[in-house]
Amino acid sequence: MAETVIRFGIIGCAEIARKISRAIILAPNAQLSAVASRSVEKAAAFAKANNFPPDAKIYGSYESLLDDPDIDAVYVPLPTSLHVKWACLVAQKKKHILLEKPVGLNVGEFDKILDACEANGVQIMDGTMWMHNPRTKKMREFLADKERFGELRTIHSTFTFAGDEDFLKNDIRVKPDLDGLGALGDAGWYPIRAILWAADYELPKTIIALRGPILNEAGVILACGASLHWEDGKVATLHCSFLTHLTMFVTAIGTKGTLHVDDFIVPFNEKEAPYTTSSKSWFNELVTGWEPLPSQNMVFVDLPQEACMVREFARLVGNIKVNGAKPDQTWPTRSRKTQLILDAVKTSIERGFEPVEIAN
Amino acid sequence: MAETVIRFGIIGCAEIARKISRAIILAPNAQLSAVASRSVEKAAAFAKANNFPPDAKIYGSYESLLDDPDIDAVYVPLPTSLHVKWACLVAQKKKHILLEKPVGLNVGEFDKILDACEANGVQIMDGTMWMHNPRTKKMREFLADKERFGELRTIHSTFTFAGDEDFLKNDIRVKPDLDGLGALGDAGWYPIRAILWAADYELPKTIIALRGPILNEAGVILACGASLHWEDGKVATLHCSFLTHLTMFVTAIGTKGTLHVDDFIVPFNEKEAPYTTSSKSWFNELVTGWEPLPSQNMVFVDLPQEACMVREFARLVGNIKVNGAKPDQTWPTRSRKTQLILDAVKTSIERGFEPVEIAN
Repeated sequence: MAETVIRFGIIGCAEIARKISRAIILAPNAQLSAVASRSVEKAAAFAKANNFPPDAKIYGSYESLLDDPDIDAVYVPLPTSLHVKWACLVAQKKKHILLEKPVGLNVGEFDKILDACEANGVQIMDGTMWMHNPRTKKMREFLADKERFGELRTIHSTFTFAGDEDFLKNDIRVKPDLDGLGALGDAGWYPIRAILWAADYELPKTIIALRGPILNEAGVILACGASLHWEDGKVATLHCSFLTHLTMFVTAIGTKGTLHVDDFIVPFNEKEAPYTTSSKSWFNELVTGWEPLPSQNMVFVDLPQEACMVREFARLVGNIKVNGAKPDQTWPTRSRKTQLILDAVKTSIERGFEPVEIAN
Repeated sequence: MAETVIRFGIIGCAEIARKISRAIILAPNAQLSAVASRSVEKAAAFAKANNFPPDAKIYGSYESLLDDPDIDAVYVPLPTSLHVKWACLVAQKKKHILLEKPVGLNVGEFDKILDACEANGVQIMDGTMWMHNPRTKKMREFLADKERFGELRTIHSTFTFAGDEDFLKNDIRVKPDLDGLGALGDAGWYPIRAILWAADYELPKTIIALRGPILNEAGVILACGASLHWEDGKVATLHCSFLTHLTMFVTAIGTKGTLHVDDFIVPFNEKEAPYTTSSKSWFNELVTGWEPLPSQNMVFVDLPQEACMVREFARLVGNIKVNGAKPDQTWPTRSRKTQLILDAVKTSIERGFEPVEIAN
């Protein structure tokens, strides 16, 4: 049975939209149908540079793309401050939404988007690509294995990269009126999601920002950290920064095993995804070595993770379109939990590093 | 020129003393000369089980070993609560001290030991073996390289292992009157030292324990964490536990590079020591991979790290004995700084997770 092909439009020609354009081309159930920019020339140049099919439509305004009846779903890579306006409008036009992260400036904004999606029966998913890498499923199997991993107790996760002078001065991610959450929203989103993922999406009870976050002159976060605490004693730490070398890791420690991954957000290369597991390791008799050694695992990836994401989103949309299914709630629930924690870290910073309780 | 051979005695037949006995045998400038236990039978059995030379002396009391004029240096693997008494006595007997970590129950105790060493002109070094692995020097070269690593900004380090039921009930490390610092003293010592090492021994200004430490019924720490903050904005987090799977890592992030090591305390095997470095890595044009990839480095280790430690300690002792040199201050200064931070983490826990300033 041929799978329904979902027709995508993109509003905004952000850098990240280049990668998603390719992903839509690669995903077997997706079609790249239109792109809109505030300038038709810019949209045309983007379509050309990114191998859009010849019949793809070029729009000089976001509104005109949203009015196109031949578009099923819209990818929204706009600055975070514009998400609530445009995502709600996309929903009102009955189009499904693939929304870049962070999903909003705060969870209140995202709730408005969710209300609009519910009112209009449309699917929403955020653009956290690594969730869809086949490696993520393999790592989940390890974490869920009571024999090999035991009970999760601790998680550490970090994402940092060194923005250059131009980035730190001019990028939308350091501008309070565009991506006002700065490094916490752009980079911190990933460790927060990784921690939630490792905890099987159980929300922590308390979140406390670490002292010494670094802000720019406009008050936008350039680097920060936090600890997360669960009722059962689980603890996690996260760190994010625009100011240090490219580093991304998750270490999840259970009572019987440990998971470590060093390229969880963007794999070192898109065809292979490595991760390390160890289970019931102990020292040898004279404590001069380990037995057994950790295992280096490799997952071969046929379809790049961002194309897997588009495929999964298009599958859910197809299910609504063809079978009249209800929109899936799994993905937006994960987005909302991620944003809740992000908000709590920000609140804790604003309150002088006081603990912030998460209302579930 | 033949190197001076230093004659070692060991007081106490702790498990860890087995590994150090072998290290003394392996070190080219050290000789295993005597062992003392509170029972002469136990000392004899220990000497036999650990390949002591036939002429090694067996003592039924620590005092009698300390009175032996043919012993230059004493290894002290006793419970932490006994360090101040016995290390001071060793010094008063003009013998040099290789002291297990943590060096004391608090820095005040260690200062008494240091005073005794100074008054008697003897060398002291703590038993942190990984400091002496040739890998550690290679990793230091990377951290010191302004081109490859840049400026250090962030460090994460963890050491955890899962004590079994017997350990958690009966081991000296969970007993308030023996090793009262629990997991913080026994396991946390290593991440604290790793963080100091990465920071080139610059003390942080402020230390804050993470909430939710786990204590046993007697109030001994079984798991805890902390964040460390330097005046210049550097930040570190540490975690230690007796309750989760064997895990030990250091991640040090600079402005231009990243160092990661997964077996820094006890290498996976004693002949080879791996570590990962990355430098000026960035994403490829479409953000689907990294360029360049991190480097997997391997250091081949001729002499196990604990034997390197004994060799270095014996070299310093030999320099005093033969050349009339003054005792080296580098190693005891590092021990003291490690203990200072350890004390601050404990104080922060006791004060309800308040920041504790480090008096330099």
